[in-house]
Amino acid sequence: MTRRIVVAGAQMGPVQRADGRGATLDRLVALLEAAARGGAKLVVFPELAFTTFFPRWPLGRQDAELLDSFEPAMPNPRVQALFDRARELGVGFYVGYAELTPEGRRFNSAVTVGPDGQVLFKYRKVHLPGSDHVKPGQRYQQLEKMHFEYGDLGFPVARGPEAWGRPVLGMLVCNDRRWPEAWRCLGLQGVELVLLGYNSAAYDPNGGEGESAETRTFHSTLAAQANAYMNATYAVAVAKAGVEDGAGLIGGSCIVDPNGRVMAQAATLGDEVILAELDFEACRQGKEKMFNFAAHRRPEMYRRIVEQVGAVAPE
Amino acid sequence: MTRRIVVAGAQMGPVQRADGRGATLDRLVALLEAAARGGAKLVVFPELAFTTFFPRWPLGRQDAELLDSFEPAMPNPRVQALFDRARELGVGFYVGYAELTPEGRRFNSAVTVGPDGQVLFKYRKVHLPGSDHVKPGQRYQQLEKMHFEYGDLGFPVARGPEAWGRPVLGMLVCNDRRWPEAWRCLGLQGVELVLLGYNSAAYDPNGGEGESAETRTFHSTLAAQANAYMNATYAVAVAKAGVEDGAGLIGGSCIVDPNGRVMAQAATLGDEVILAELDFEACRQGKEKMFNFAAHRRPEMYRRIVEQVGAVAPE
Repeated sequence: MTRRIVVAGAQMGPVQRADGRGATLDRLVALLEAAARGGAKLVVFPELAFTTFFPRWPLGRQDAELLDSFEPAMPNPRVQALFDRARELGVGFYVGYAELTPEGRRFNSAVTVGPDGQVLFKYRKVHLPGSDHVKPGQRYQQLEKMHFEYGDLGFPVARGPEAWGRPVLGMLVCNDRRWPEAWRCLGLQGVELVLLGYNSAAYDPNGGEGESAETRTFHSTLAAQANAYMNATYAVAVAKAGVEDGAGLIGGSCIVDPNGRVMAQAATLGDEVILAELDFEACRQGKEKMFNFAAHRRPEMYRRIVEQVGAVAPE
Repeated sequence: MTRRIVVAGAQMGPVQRADGRGATLDRLVALLEAAARGGAKLVVFPELAFTTFFPRWPLGRQDAELLDSFEPAMPNPRVQALFDRARELGVGFYVGYAELTPEGRRFNSAVTVGPDGQVLFKYRKVHLPGSDHVKPGQRYQQLEKMHFEYGDLGFPVARGPEAWGRPVLGMLVCNDRRWPEAWRCLGLQGVELVLLGYNSAAYDPNGGEGESAETRTFHSTLAAQANAYMNATYAVAVAKAGVEDGAGLIGGSCIVDPNGRVMAQAATLGDEVILAELDFEACRQGKEKMFNFAAHRRPEMYRRIVEQVGAVAPE
């Protein structure tokens, strides 16, 4: 069994609030096809890929626009064309979406789908940024803590199929990538490829101060690089980029190797496919030597990580 | 109270096995003086700064050369000149050393010393790399697990003095810097400046395969950058560099800001001072927003980090 596979990051340009779901799905299918033409067997789409980044709008819980942004099942008729085309091409994918459960619970989720069109596993975003209430007087909000529950599935992994070399796959969503705890929970399960999509602000859309888009892209790339290195895993991190209804999102989608090196990175803020060939055997050097966890970790010294939430500085 | 301070990294070139302790101490004092001339109020020296990196030699527990490499107290007469000169200059420092306790316990330790010449706090390296036994047939060993006990002080922090702006200081030693758990334990105590020294192999001195010196330096810098960013802290990471008795060590000593940007980096593999002015107020942006731990961490999801040592991959 070869353990080599070409993977793609399918960065998306902006999805405007008024864009139809069908037009957006057509873009996803077009990106999938472009990735497949490039030899990709696995394609990574962004977080909340089927819609605009709707948590920026102060929509009520039963608002029709909000409800229309959620998926009651995955797949479902509105996204079936993507699943069908991927199965035809023998390509798997990761895609982020807003999940509405039969019980009415809401999560910022992602699934990885195998080349047979079946969902391999699901992840629900643990690190929700933003606010749990509308901030008055602000045109643009960040309401993930209001629209979603915290993910309750932990950090699951799954083996990919034979055709991919049976890599141990893990998923993250957006802000999770900045939290080394999340990566380590995957690393402790032997992860060899982390798939993640994101929507990250390029600037404060309300005009406040903040880091430049260049710095924010640097942060995003740095987090993927270092956490991939420290867990001896590949990572594919994929943006929805560009300006959505006046709010800018960084690009910088990248594929990173287990040394933390960027193998490919998007150059635009639009729909763009990046490709790289991975060799999962290259994870072994790190996992067996520098990051041989069994030999070198000291969990009895790490208790603060689970016994304390916030930072407590000395007097 | 201003919260600005100039800090220095005092990279050392190699210390040969035959070098006298006095000559090495003279180099430390010269580096201290150069840093002070550059305006530094706090100088960071490498791990095991007073000697060669002796864990590469298969020395027995009672071997005179080994015992001579340990410090029975800190300070002690053989290092007093460094403490005295620093106090005269009003400069504090971090220095790594081999600690021998009155009970005969041995640790790979570091202290941070205030501008008054008093030890502010001590740290004992938690993440010991290498082997706990001599590997036969190898000229060069890595025997930290044999020569030292695992650090038993956790990851302590201390406030620096008024003259430094009372930053929350944390220490790490060498390999610790690759372990995000260590940084997070400091971050959870509000750390604003992480001091660390290292001796990291530039290649396998026994001629085996391995990463290039360039890749190893990249790894070292990447770990400092990303962990500083993810904990919204400054970091000063300082090497003993160059070729010690045929075994090469990377350089790359660097000062990193809370955005993960390299502010200064050593260009040589020799004795070299790097300088940067830090403003601890710059840690607030990260600590209050992106890395507001109280608002965003989910410790109930991190239990694997403390309940499991090694990686366990799915079937």
